[in-house]
Amino acid sequence: MSDTTLTADRLAQTSSPVLDVLAGRWSPRAYDMDAPIDETKLASALEAARWSPSANNSQPWRFIVARRGTEAHRVLVDALMGFNKEWAGSAAALIVAVAETSAADGTPIRWAAYDLGQAVAHLSVQAHHDGLYVHQMGGFDAEAVRAAFDLEERFVPMTAIALGELGDLSALSEPLQQRETAPRVRRPLDEIVIAA
Amino acid sequence: MSDTTLTADRLAQTSSPVLDVLAGRWSPRAYDMDAPIDETKLASALEAARWSPSANNSQPWRFIVARRGTEAHRVLVDALMGFNKEWAGSAAALIVAVAETSAADGTPIRWAAYDLGQAVAHLSVQAHHDGLYVHQMGGFDAEAVRAAFDLEERFVPMTAIALGELGDLSALSEPLQQRETAPRVRRPLDEIVIAA
Repeated sequence: MSDTTLTADRLAQTSSPVLDVLAGRWSPRAYDMDAPIDETKLASALEAARWSPSANNSQPWRFIVARRGTEAHRVLVDALMGFNKEWAGSAAALIVAVAETSAADGTPIRWAAYDLGQAVAHLSVQAHHDGLYVHQMGGFDAEAVRAAFDLEERFVPMTAIALGELGDLSALSEPLQQRETAPRVRRPLDEIVIAA
Repeated sequence: MSDTTLTADRLAQTSSPVLDVLAGRWSPRAYDMDAPIDETKLASALEAARWSPSANNSQPWRFIVARRGTEAHRVLVDALMGFNKEWAGSAAALIVAVAETSAADGTPIRWAAYDLGQAVAHLSVQAHHDGLYVHQMGGFDAEAVRAAFDLEERFVPMTAIALGELGDLSALSEPLQQRETAPRVRRPLDEIVIAA
């Protein structure tokens, strides 16, 4: 393994106490390009997603899981856009999070995207706890993914997710290195609480 | 406090190891109707939401926070629909999770609902860790909430969230008691993984 001291510990400066696994979770781009995905940890991450809550327990989530080195992985790397293509293929796995936006009978599932987000959050928390890092991307060709994996229209690929161990920062281009080490920032709490 | 032994421990039967805070999280309806909200824990839950990831760090989430006994709380209880009206007002706080679906300049925020879901998942995990229980509801009058809190069109109230300590199961009606103690179930993992 490589020098990850710069990037492994990036606890947020929270204004109230927050679980380390939440305060310490962040979205890297420097992934270990050699280590294969730890199958036990991958299974736990998916299991965490599986037990996420959803409206009427509709569970409107599906996951395309592709390990580095497989044809499915090559298809997903091809579908990545812009900067994402440069770094995300290094991660041991790419996962596409897919929302089931209507049931097989056509009934809309109104909270599909919202509940998919919850499921991926659970996945991320479990993965981070287990030493796997998650970086979600919106920048990918969802229609190319739909075509390659033969998804019905009611299934909408929402995010591509890089999952793996941290790698060497120096393997990134200079602009990506700068992003990687930029401070983590958020709006102050009083800007996101409307009435209190 | 009342007898909560039936309901406090409902660890999911996971097929892979998952953090207790994820496996043990569930959505009760029996809330303690006397205990006020613990302000420190509420602040931590909102702080956890605040540090959630989002597309381009857009942070498209807002939270209407109403403590039981306030006018804002009465407004939210009035907006609840069906069964929710029967139990959710007992919780020490009601929160409405609001998605910012476009920026002030009109630019759509495509992952608003998805990222709001992530933020509420983080809130739920932190709250559960701190002994507060979360139950999200889609069944409420979003337009009534919009009107009462003077939200622009670009802000969409997505879920109402009951937050508080567990209460006495016997305070619930018989049908709700049955729901409360029903086994927690999910689709098997192989039904949610499309390609592996």
